Amino acid sequence: MNFEFYNPTKVYFGKGKIEVLKKEIMEGTKVLLTYGFSSIKKNGLYDEIISMLKKLNCEIYELSGIEPNPKLSSVKSGIKICKDKNIELILAVGGGSVIDASKAISIGAKSDADVWDLIIKRETPTDRIPLGAILTLSATGTEMNPNSVITNDENNQKVGFAHRPFTFPVFSILDPTYTISVPRNQTVNGIVDTISHLLEQYFNAGENGELVDRFCESSIRYMMEIAPKLLNDLNNYELREAMMYTSFVGLNGTLSVAGGDWATHEIEHSVSGIFDIPHGVGLAIITPNWMEYVATKKPDKIIKLGKKLFDFEQGGLRDIEFCHKVANKFKEFFKSIGIQTSLKECGITEDSLEILVENTFPINDKIGEYVELVRDDVREILKKSM
Amino acid sequence: MNFEFYNPTKVYFGKGKIEVLKKEIMEGTKVLLTYGFSSIKKNGLYDEIISMLKKLNCEIYELSGIEPNPKLSSVKSGIKICKDKNIELILAVGGGSVIDASKAISIGAKSDADVWDLIIKRETPTDRIPLGAILTLSATGTEMNPNSVITNDENNQKVGFAHRPFTFPVFSILDPTYTISVPRNQTVNGIVDTISHLLEQYFNAGENGELVDRFCESSIRYMMEIAPKLLNDLNNYELREAMMYTSFVGLNGTLSVAGGDWATHEIEHSVSGIFDIPHGVGLAIITPNWMEYVATKKPDKIIKLGKKLFDFEQGGLRDIEFCHKVANKFKEFFKSIGIQTSLKECGITEDSLEILVENTFPINDKIGEYVELVRDDVREILKKSM
Repeated sequence: MNFEFYNPTKVYFGKGKIEVLKKEIMEGTKVLLTYGFSSIKKNGLYDEIISMLKKLNCEIYELSGIEPNPKLSSVKSGIKICKDKNIELILAVGGGSVIDASKAISIGAKSDADVWDLIIKRETPTDRIPLGAILTLSATGTEMNPNSVITNDENNQKVGFAHRPFTFPVFSILDPTYTISVPRNQTVNGIVDTISHLLEQYFNAGENGELVDRFCESSIRYMMEIAPKLLNDLNNYELREAMMYTSFVGLNGTLSVAGGDWATHEIEHSVSGIFDIPHGVGLAIITPNWMEYVATKKPDKIIKLGKKLFDFEQGGLRDIEFCHKVANKFKEFFKSIGIQTSLKECGITEDSLEILVENTFPINDKIGEYVELVRDDVREILKKSM
Repeated sequence: MNFEFYNPTKVYFGKGKIEVLKKEIMEGTKVLLTYGFSSIKKNGLYDEIISMLKKLNCEIYELSGIEPNPKLSSVKSGIKICKDKNIELILAVGGGSVIDASKAISIGAKSDADVWDLIIKRETPTDRIPLGAILTLSATGTEMNPNSVITNDENNQKVGFAHRPFTFPVFSILDPTYTISVPRNQTVNGIVDTISHLLEQYFNAGENGELVDRFCESSIRYMMEIAPKLLNDLNNYELREAMMYTSFVGLNGTLSVAGGDWATHEIEHSVSGIFDIPHGVGLAIITPNWMEYVATKKPDKIIKLGKKLFDFEQGGLRDIEFCHKVANKFKEFFKSIGIQTSLKECGITEDSLEILVENTFPINDKIGEYVELVRDDVREILKKSM
């Protein structure tokens, strides 16, 4: 193991924690409030925040309409407001997409470079506008990590990036209350995304990460246990809280110290970059097929996962058969929570195969760590996923 | 769950990470190097650091001889050097005691108040000298948390404190290489301390901390698995690395979000404050007896621990019998790694009972969270521990 761990985000977790805005925002600050669509107006959160900012005599500007797969054009609109109005703090209210877009805005607004060049790392940021986040959807862990994913609406490339320390939020408020109104389908997507992050970190190539593996096993198992309960009882605070905590520890850096294999995410980014399907849906489709394909090259950790997670015994099964059983169990689970498990169900056919393969490699010619994949491998995984 | 999580320490983990000193320390900085006794001179680490600091044209001052239970008098010596020489960075090289003492020095040197008043929180620090740490002994997690424990050699009070954010190290270097020369008995103490931290966090009073519980169970189980292997093969890098990572995640804040019961630590501080026994020894003695006593009041989490950690089945056993079986298993484990399990073995007798009880409550009249304890309870636990 060889890693650097640094995470300066202040996290406020629990009911009523929004009160800390009074402490975190100085009187008279020029604030850009970023959010998605109308949900925060319906549940009263928007009014609550505006009222608090007004009491602090803040100058308030707004960027609304940030898309579920946040687009470069939205990021550019945000940067323009920041530069025109000399914004001093960005306050992102939403889930992964709003916070991710706001991270790109925060560095883009303090740079003369084109923001896409910062995203694809052709240029390097040297400063940022501080970013605070109020999380309304549990999934990505973006509230406490430097990662962001932006889709370029000019060329459909969907690219993940991080610029430490600039893209860490300064503070994040995690009040499970705000996630209670998240509808069923978005909750399902969040569950899949959380499990996927844990799986990607489980498939690290580290040689001495046994404790990390056990934490991942515990977290995935726990998430799979609470998922059906939560989906039967969406208003349950304790279950929302459990999910929020799980996705928070799932991607705050603690479990990534032994590395991780992010191939599934990169293939998914290609798909949702072009077809604009929800990230969680793409992951639910790709994950079991990635697993089946990779099993032909390196089955050991998939076998371990099956034993630890599902208490499967290998008995007389060949490795490859055992791995298929594990992959199939994930497919069954995803079906059981009501999410698509094939690209066809999303209207995506083999006609798009080549463009999806190509779009998986916007920067490098290889993806993955547990097993490295090139275009031919990705083609096979996408074919299986059709 | 209701918590704030903030941990700004930069952690550099792995072989050769000492190279980052070049990045973390500016040319010409006035450095106070703090350490214990001769071990870092024997293993070459001292020479390596001095040579790097000289290349950086640093002005180097030293405070050596910091005791295993660090004393207020050492802290005061360090503060004097810092004030006299306008020290700009404290570089602590050692285990928990050296780093803990350096935390107290770092705030004391920037305050007009008596440092003991800062420790017992009669006064509040407003600044600190930045602290960097090079860890040579895995155990306390102090390398990545704001906690410190200092013994007042005037009145034998041993008090734990934290002043966020001032007592977080700015950076910490965790290279398992430096722990390879740690002798067997100190390694044993570190194992016990690491397990104890995990247990204290397991006995939180949180109502929805199931995932935290599972992480603690995994970590304790893992530590108990690797302990005998490590003690049979003290020079094994991978096992030293595994222990270093376990103690690092054990107390960096991730597992304390649901709370924790630190009564065992507070009772132990009373004992080692007066008798100067190693902290790990005190914990090995107190832990099973705390567990047996607390079982009479609230057995449920001890029962859960026995089932999860040791795969015990309760069968026809009464709760209290089952808990005794769990406590006994810990006692057996501690014996098996060659550490004392009664105060008598350390030469401490019932004559000292009252003073030990009184010394457990230097500030408050109650300790503990899972079960609150007052003087009468602590007396019983100490009697059992004799």
